[in-house]
Amino acid sequence: MHSFPSIQTIKEAAARIKPYVHRTPVFTSATIDRLCEGRVFFKSENLQKVGAFKARGAVNAVFSLEEGDFLGGGGVEKCVTTHSSGNHAAALAYAARCRGIKAHVVMPENAPPVKKAAVAGYGAEITYTESTQQAREKALDEIVTRTGAVFVHPYNDYRVIAGQATAALELMEQVPGLDTVIAPVGGGGLLSGTALSVSALWPTAEVLGAEPQGADDAYRSIQAGKIIPLTNPQTIADGLRTSLGDLTFPIIHQHVSAILTASEEAIVEAMRLTWERMKLVVEPSAALPLAVLLANSNYIKGKNIGLIVSGGNADLDQLPWLKV
Amino acid sequence: MHSFPSIQTIKEAAARIKPYVHRTPVFTSATIDRLCEGRVFFKSENLQKVGAFKARGAVNAVFSLEEGDFLGGGGVEKCVTTHSSGNHAAALAYAARCRGIKAHVVMPENAPPVKKAAVAGYGAEITYTESTQQAREKALDEIVTRTGAVFVHPYNDYRVIAGQATAALELMEQVPGLDTVIAPVGGGGLLSGTALSVSALWPTAEVLGAEPQGADDAYRSIQAGKIIPLTNPQTIADGLRTSLGDLTFPIIHQHVSAILTASEEAIVEAMRLTWERMKLVVEPSAALPLAVLLANSNYIKGKNIGLIVSGGNADLDQLPWLKV
Repeated sequence: MHSFPSIQTIKEAAARIKPYVHRTPVFTSATIDRLCEGRVFFKSENLQKVGAFKARGAVNAVFSLEEGDFLGGGGVEKCVTTHSSGNHAAALAYAARCRGIKAHVVMPENAPPVKKAAVAGYGAEITYTESTQQAREKALDEIVTRTGAVFVHPYNDYRVIAGQATAALELMEQVPGLDTVIAPVGGGGLLSGTALSVSALWPTAEVLGAEPQGADDAYRSIQAGKIIPLTNPQTIADGLRTSLGDLTFPIIHQHVSAILTASEEAIVEAMRLTWERMKLVVEPSAALPLAVLLANSNYIKGKNIGLIVSGGNADLDQLPWLKV
Repeated sequence: MHSFPSIQTIKEAAARIKPYVHRTPVFTSATIDRLCEGRVFFKSENLQKVGAFKARGAVNAVFSLEEGDFLGGGGVEKCVTTHSSGNHAAALAYAARCRGIKAHVVMPENAPPVKKAAVAGYGAEITYTESTQQAREKALDEIVTRTGAVFVHPYNDYRVIAGQATAALELMEQVPGLDTVIAPVGGGGLLSGTALSVSALWPTAEVLGAEPQGADDAYRSIQAGKIIPLTNPQTIADGLRTSLGDLTFPIIHQHVSAILTASEEAIVEAMRLTWERMKLVVEPSAALPLAVLLANSNYIKGKNIGLIVSGGNADLDQLPWLKV
């Protein structure tokens, strides 16, 4: 039985990352309140450093490392490594640059050019592989052996979870009295962190996860009471095509009331609504909380609801509501 | 010789509109600072009510009206009117709804459906006309005669100018020590208001106007020392296809250091950069200040520059960087 990160650990993470991340604003929209028949508060992590909440967890992990943590390999230089095609790659590269150490990032060759450019822009060294798990793990092992880099997992890491938890910590300071907090769930780093902060500081509030119907492993895992790995995900929400980890699942199982799912159409509609009415660029994954809200308005009618808007790294050349 | 609105008048406007408008946030971007080699502060009026700074001027004008102002016509109901195909129409409709009076808006038949829907959504009565000045003025005259509605001009009105001036007033409170403030210029309501606030409160700062090359009447008017009307504007910045008015021109002539112009390509590039790096949806007109900044980086190198990001009502189905 693991001991989950405590609220004290989360507050220490908040203090640790403060110089390197934004305290993101919370926005409201009269139109969306009317549509949802409630009061909705958007915690805008799309305006976070690197354009996503992932900066919080990566910075907390990298700045938690002590001198001894770097001595495992044969390398001469302190460094960190991860595999990711998405926001965690840029976040780790950013965090490493903040600390003045090197980051090695394993990315699939077919990652979008804009993501490759972002990671390279933060000064990380990129190793390209085929987009199979085997190729990825082999490349990562080789980096660790060669350089002694410390591996920072995208979500299955308590330091990362404690970092992601700081978004909900801020939200509760910014908006007291929330009835419900909704976060998207992929690997579960953000949702488990959110659940830890809310259950510790505001236990009367309910925490919900929001997940694509086409990648509903968290929903099925909670139903089954054990991790059901995701196979063949079918969703435009590219940040949510991952399975829960053995550290995130137990937290979610204990502290999250329900996982609600949304169709692809609902995700695109919520994404567009956020752009149109909030004037915020959000990526598909970040639209999940609003998508489930709009589909479950009876459930949340009259309530004060906080949504974690997870990121804004959308592809501006491929808008899902435009049939190009 | 007119007596321009004083800083006292502008502060009264700020107090008057406060319950009905947002104090919009100011954002920064490390990437854009690096590109511009300065510190750039984005006053995000795209997050304003109705998605544009126009809410400020319209609310100030509507709430400045006294009982006697409504007695001019034969109508039985207090009401206001304007002609506009853009943000002022929605802003006036919103302001009237806030005061609990009626708005009559004259719009061209070929206005975008999304703009028509916005105006109707705020409860205004819309009169559609052909998109000629003659048809528009005839419809407006008819409304005034029939209803006694008070005409609120989109920019050539001191109450409107004083309202628009409150955006820069807030910006100077939010970011002390600016060297330069840049606002887009169409009819000149925003730029003249900005110039009045800055010259009164922070006279060491320079105020610049930003204008499309394809609609550069303000540039030519300042060169000539008199109003040169705009003919045949060619720009995607639909909010800036208007000529200066006889109230806005003298203020700009006296208090604005220069009008800088940007090409269509530069406008689109700045718009896309704002979406991509700031995660903010801005309309083409709102990208003008950044566009001129990027084209004149020597001019502003090392300075603290405030940009008025005028609005976010972009057409999400017609993104100018996508060749659909």
